[in-house]
Amino acid sequence: MQENIKNFVENSKFQNFIIALIIINGITMGFETSKGFMESYGSIIHIFDKLVITIFTLEIMLRIYAHRVSFFKDTWSLFDFAIVAISLVPSTGGFEIFRILRVIRLLRLITVVPQMRKIVMALVSVIPGMLSIAGLLMLLFYIFAIMATQLYSESFPLWFGTLGESFYTLFQVMTLESWSMGIVRPIMEVHPYAWTFFIPFIFMVTFIMINLIVAVVVDAMAEINKDETSCVVEEIHTHEDHTALQLKALQLEIRELKELVREKL
Amino acid sequence: MQENIKNFVENSKFQNFIIALIIINGITMGFETSKGFMESYGSIIHIFDKLVITIFTLEIMLRIYAHRVSFFKDTWSLFDFAIVAISLVPSTGGFEIFRILRVIRLLRLITVVPQMRKIVMALVSVIPGMLSIAGLLMLLFYIFAIMATQLYSESFPLWFGTLGESFYTLFQVMTLESWSMGIVRPIMEVHPYAWTFFIPFIFMVTFIMINLIVAVVVDAMAEINKDETSCVVEEIHTHEDHTALQLKALQLEIRELKELVREKL
Amino acid sequence: MQENIKNFVENSKFQNFIIALIIINGITMGFETSKGFMESYGSIIHIFDKLVITIFTLEIMLRIYAHRVSFFKDTWSLFDFAIVAISLVPSTGGFEIFRILRVIRLLRLITVVPQMRKIVMALVSVIPGMLSIAGLLMLLFYIFAIMATQLYSESFPLWFGTLGESFYTLFQVMTLESWSMGIVRPIMEVHPYAWTFFIPFIFMVTFIMINLIVAVVVDAMAEINKDETSCVVEEIHTHEDHTALQLKALQLEIRELKELVREKL
Amino acid sequence: MQENIKNFVENSKFQNFIIALIIINGITMGFETSKGFMESYGSIIHIFDKLVITIFTLEIMLRIYAHRVSFFKDTWSLFDFAIVAISLVPSTGGFEIFRILRVIRLLRLITVVPQMRKIVMALVSVIPGMLSIAGLLMLLFYIFAIMATQLYSESFPLWFGTLGESFYTLFQVMTLESWSMGIVRPIMEVHPYAWTFFIPFIFMVTFIMINLIVAVVVDAMAEINKDETSCVVEEIHTHEDHTALQLKALQLEIRELKELVREKL
Repeated sequence: MQENIKNFVENSKFQNFIIALIIINGITMGFETSKGFMESYGSIIHIFDKLVITIFTLEIMLRIYAHRVSFFKDTWSLFDFAIVAISLVPSTGGFEIFRILRVIRLLRLITVVPQMRKIVMALVSVIPGMLSIAGLLMLLFYIFAIMATQLYSESFPLWFGTLGESFYTLFQVMTLESWSMGIVRPIMEVHPYAWTFFIPFIFMVTFIMINLIVAVVVDAMAEINKDETSCVVEEIHTHEDHTALQLKALQLEIRELKELVREKL
Repeated sequence: MQENIKNFVENSKFQNFIIALIIINGITMGFETSKGFMESYGSIIHIFDKLVITIFTLEIMLRIYAHRVSFFKDTWSLFDFAIVAISLVPSTGGFEIFRILRVIRLLRLITVVPQMRKIVMALVSVIPGMLSIAGLLMLLFYIFAIMATQLYSESFPLWFGTLGESFYTLFQVMTLESWSMGIVRPIMEVHPYAWTFFIPFIFMVTFIMINLIVAVVVDAMAEINKDETSCVVEEIHTHEDHTALQLKALQLEIRELKELVREKL
Repeated sequence: MQENIKNFVENSKFQNFIIALIIINGITMGFETSKGFMESYGSIIHIFDKLVITIFTLEIMLRIYAHRVSFFKDTWSLFDFAIVAISLVPSTGGFEIFRILRVIRLLRLITVVPQMRKIVMALVSVIPGMLSIAGLLMLLFYIFAIMATQLYSESFPLWFGTLGESFYTLFQVMTLESWSMGIVRPIMEVHPYAWTFFIPFIFMVTFIMINLIVAVVVDAMAEINKDETSCVVEEIHTHEDHTALQLKALQLEIRELKELVREKL
Repeated sequence: MQENIKNFVENSKFQNFIIALIIINGITMGFETSKGFMESYGSIIHIFDKLVITIFTLEIMLRIYAHRVSFFKDTWSLFDFAIVAISLVPSTGGFEIFRILRVIRLLRLITVVPQMRKIVMALVSVIPGMLSIAGLLMLLFYIFAIMATQLYSESFPLWFGTLGESFYTLFQVMTLESWSMGIVRPIMEVHPYAWTFFIPFIFMVTFIMINLIVAVVVDAMAEINKDETSCVVEEIHTHEDHTALQLKALQLEIRELKELVREKL
């Protein structure tokens, strides 16, 4: 029984059916944003949506039944479980946000399409190599945010009124969006030396960001280089083995000759 | 006959004539944008333009006659064909757009100049390696566009009124153009927690874009690395062959010696 | 006695205590930016702050006592010393800036956490390779800043009034922030050929910046490549040694044989 | 005589004197931008400036005398010559621009300092590898500029009135500066489908720019890779030679043995 269900949910036809369902649901969700469309076809769309979530819930339940505990050990399964769980939360009474989060259901496409899964895993594998530099960036941001709040909360409460607002504004400055015309020039009219705060900030943050990207490139290249090197080293070993074999054969022949000489004479 | 025409259209002098024609046509098209110039020389320019398109049409016809079916199997030939076809569409009666598309005729420079062709092919060859990450980016964009429309279509109909407008605005946010001062700060005045939507969006999209660029660099480098490695491996094989030959010669000499000993004794 | 103190300050428990102290102090400094919080708990926070700086001062004194002169030869120790010294400057009477600089005390996290130290050293090691290009960029900036001041100080004193203001505005243009809509278009209304100044500037500066980043990537890759190559070369040497040994053994056998023949006959 | 002058102008002390002169002149030129400073010390600065240009002229004349025709064959010498020539043009009567171009005299620092020269040559060496892609970018720009002028010159004469203005505006869009809020959104109010023109433009241009940068990185890396590979290949050859030598020695010994056997028996 359990085996049958496992075969059923892992069947490629069933998988394709799920993929088709996600894509169609994606399209209907796109149409849901159109008021005019919803006025005419709203009820059908809602019925279809309920159908989709019912099928997804059944699928998850079958998969839990089939895989038992191991279902909850697989990250992708947990990801699917979380997405379906969010869809099931009633979107009324203070939980309106869940009605909007319903859309992330389309992310299930990543779990069902193997190529997508591979890319997401490749992207995620890049993160650990960035964490240490990101940590340093966070520390710098925190220090600059505290300083910005202390310096400019009085004169520019909108931008630097609280620590959170300072964080947001500094993030904007980091992306270089309107950093000068929008933020620093107006500040410099009140605090003429504000550039001594913001120019070093931009320098540091840009420098760290460049190094972050370089780290990603270098890590990816290092892996490829390693593969190529190990390929060359293997080739050298094969060569060495061949030469060694031939030399061994030569030694044998010489020994035979020696034996021959010793015998004959 | 067919051979003669083939030789004629593939003749380097004829090719240079076509290149010259495209460049001169490019210059006249530049002048066409000047009203003052067109008032004085408009009629000459128009006659020249008609001449150019006639020559191009004749050239394409000759090439079709010379290459027959194989003409339509070559991407570059089809590209030329499409460009000339667009130029021939009458630009009146609802087809004014074709008058403007006439300019893409200058793209024929790419087909005629071999170096240009090579670069375009190199650029195009980069695309397949980007498709999978671009697919993920599209999925994310779609999900965020739907959410943005649901969240902000009421309060900011100009930016997020329809799914298409949300796509456009999110693309603008992705390029970081006025994302904060122009879009997110005004939204935060109505929805104070809008940053929880846009900051993660910027993070994700920037992260994916960085990985897209890294993928292009790494793919290009991997190809070079492969060439270099195969060059080294070949060198190792040559070395192995040389050593093997010398060892073979040595073995022969030993065998001769053995024969000598066997005979003599 | 000196040894005991050295062991004490380098003890991992004491180090963890310092790390915990910095993190807690970081959190309290975050709360200090909140006016409401400071009105209720300000006095406690101030006492804690005094406690922290006392502990830091004591720690530095103990480390100086333990390491003597060698303390002042270690860059990280000097860094800690400078940070604590800044915290001790009274923040009254024209030195209000030191009250704000107090926050950089959190940078001590870099000195105490080994991973952070490693990253900062990696980042710093990138700088020498950038200096020469940065020097050229500085020279270009200086020349363009002088020219900008001469050309536009009359008509746009706010942006190019003094050499310093020109530097700032050109830096803004380099980051591409509002360079056209904010700066160059308004200038072109007065000086129609201003684009002949700014477009080449943007080209040069962007070109140099790209090369700066490329230099960082290439330096990082070159180091990895070097390691891989030396690894392959070592492998070749090992192979050579093995073959040489085997050949030596073969030679010995042949010589023995020669001896045998010479003796027997 | 000619030799003496050659030794004099190429003497390191004389070179250092020129470097010092350029740097001091750079500083005085910086001060020249300050009105207050010029009112007090203007006359001294002007005398110093005349002195500097006299020395530079004399130096160039001596170098021409020393090197004769070969002076005009060296790019750096011609560069120096052009800079001094510009400084000598009288800056009155319609040539006010030359008074401003005087500042580029500081670029002589590049010719005199060998490290600077090296960097500039490295930067210049990058350009050929970019030319072909830059050519394609130019072609695209030209086509889009003509189309933009045809489409929007009526409704937005300030941005797309002439071909030149379209070029400028498209360059601004390429740098992503205010492309949406400043340019495309206002256009879309008149031409709702303007995004079908600008979004593909941004995509193409960004894609080509990314490939331009990737080409620079890959070219730089390929050169390093080549060096490393040739280093490995050389190592393999050395190894091959060693083995070949040893095998030759072995062969000789076997032949000796053969001779011995043949003789003795």
